[in-house]
Amino acid sequence: MAADRPPRIALLSRVLDMRYLAPAFQALRPDIEWRTADDLGDPARIDAAVCWLPPAGLLGTLPNLRLIQSIGAGVDHIYADPAVPRQVPVCRVSEAGMTAGMSTYVAWAVINHHRHFPDYVRNCAEGIWRESPIVPPSEHRVAIAGLGRLGLAAASALSALGYRVSGWSRTPKPGLPVGITGHHGADGLPALLAEADTLVCLLPLTDETRGFLGAATFAQLPRGAHVVNTGRGEHLDPDALLAALDSGQLAYATLDATPQEPLPPEHALWRHRNVLVTPHIATRTPAAAIARQTLENLQTVLEGRRPDTCADADLGY
Amino acid sequence: MAADRPPRIALLSRVLDMRYLAPAFQALRPDIEWRTADDLGDPARIDAAVCWLPPAGLLGTLPNLRLIQSIGAGVDHIYADPAVPRQVPVCRVSEAGMTAGMSTYVAWAVINHHRHFPDYVRNCAEGIWRESPIVPPSEHRVAIAGLGRLGLAAASALSALGYRVSGWSRTPKPGLPVGITGHHGADGLPALLAEADTLVCLLPLTDETRGFLGAATFAQLPRGAHVVNTGRGEHLDPDALLAALDSGQLAYATLDATPQEPLPPEHALWRHRNVLVTPHIATRTPAAAIARQTLENLQTVLEGRRPDTCADADLGY
Repeated sequence: MAADRPPRIALLSRVLDMRYLAPAFQALRPDIEWRTADDLGDPARIDAAVCWLPPAGLLGTLPNLRLIQSIGAGVDHIYADPAVPRQVPVCRVSEAGMTAGMSTYVAWAVINHHRHFPDYVRNCAEGIWRESPIVPPSEHRVAIAGLGRLGLAAASALSALGYRVSGWSRTPKPGLPVGITGHHGADGLPALLAEADTLVCLLPLTDETRGFLGAATFAQLPRGAHVVNTGRGEHLDPDALLAALDSGQLAYATLDATPQEPLPPEHALWRHRNVLVTPHIATRTPAAAIARQTLENLQTVLEGRRPDTCADADLGY
Repeated sequence: MAADRPPRIALLSRVLDMRYLAPAFQALRPDIEWRTADDLGDPARIDAAVCWLPPAGLLGTLPNLRLIQSIGAGVDHIYADPAVPRQVPVCRVSEAGMTAGMSTYVAWAVINHHRHFPDYVRNCAEGIWRESPIVPPSEHRVAIAGLGRLGLAAASALSALGYRVSGWSRTPKPGLPVGITGHHGADGLPALLAEADTLVCLLPLTDETRGFLGAATFAQLPRGAHVVNTGRGEHLDPDALLAALDSGQLAYATLDATPQEPLPPEHALWRHRNVLVTPHIATRTPAAAIARQTLENLQTVLEGRRPDTCADADLGY
């Protein structure tokens, strides 16, 4: 990129109209040039690509690309394209408001089932005053699969609420907050699942984690467990979930991510009494944060350094 | 009380069958003697009274009573009786599990409205995929009226979830956790209410706080506020609440305490679209904690000291 011209950013998605991001970029750098896939101009002039499910193959056609920026915490939607150039840094967005948004969703989901709120909500509509059993949070075990930034923040918030929290990560996580039990690696997974009254999926999506919320995992949970999917839709096997709910192995599921999105109106998950589906709203990244982090990351790359929100191309997250 | 005989405890309530507490006392002191109002024996032999809405006048007839122990955090149900002997210490129960139970209820209630979960729950039943606006928790202001043990714990938990939390107490509270803004006294109340997107009532019930959740308070909240009553039923004016909801001054109410309990099935609060009534379940004191604290408090009193969970008879809480 020539130092004497403003950066040119491509806003690329095959499912979202990414033009909503343009004002946030312009607010930070009024001289910025932005393009979409339909109006890309000279591919050699694109410095950075800001992506959500970018059109297949397109990233491989930009010879001078210096940065690929996801607009969320996940980068699986970028690595899913084999044409992604390996030498270009792929960065996620990490933002306090986004982390807090996820923590509020996870905390609500855990409390909602643990404290029997679905029953209270139904009873309220009928004018029924009926107490459900009260179990102290210290006796309810929450397991967080995935201890990235979102998983760690959710684990800390639940621990502050008095829950017994454990977590799992692929590799050991030193310095876990006090009160959170850590497990790691394939060998550590059975111990995590065996102590999960509620299991929260906040894993990155990789070949290893695809289908994690499936029959094999459900069978290792205590009978009557609650499953929360705040990861990716592809973590979930809906048929295995429905079977586990109907057999009583699972008591409840809270799903913010499903393999088909939007979930079709006729899908059985919507109307199952013990399932809550929400429309992928656990967290959202503010446009201003996306714009700011993209410009900062581009500057970092141009200075020859690696942004600390970079994903690892070999791991895929 | 003679040092050479086991303590005799009266279990007194005009609404609960208090005999459920006897095994917990006997587990700690197998030789304990317990009585109920129907079978009190010699009034001069009662050393301690464990109470929930005790029969009117009865506490005044126990000449050698050394301790009056509430089974909950509130003591208003004891001071409501003018016959309560002024010289006998009145203690509340304070227990970590109880505090955590309250914090989970309050956190759920705050998140539930702030993140539009009532809409998602309704939409789920209809198979509707529709996003509601996402406001970061840092832009949602929660005001906690009452900074006793339960109020402080709820404030800390909400702050850990990223909310902007302020609190109010009758007198200044030194040493509030970082991030929580304190207000106090009658002069401090308008500032608290003006910044409450959600107002949580965790006040003790006194003559000053009776009807706190009424027209005067609602009028000082920002338009569209959410009100949570986890205090006492008598804090709430239901007619004023319904009027404020119907005018749009309030957007939502979450009520774990109502003036009539159980709330009659035909009451308008049950079926109002923007009200959730729960059957006074925010927290419950484990019997073991009641028994342990009663025996500890009795021992403290017999040693001539004042238990630190003692209420102030002049303040009534």
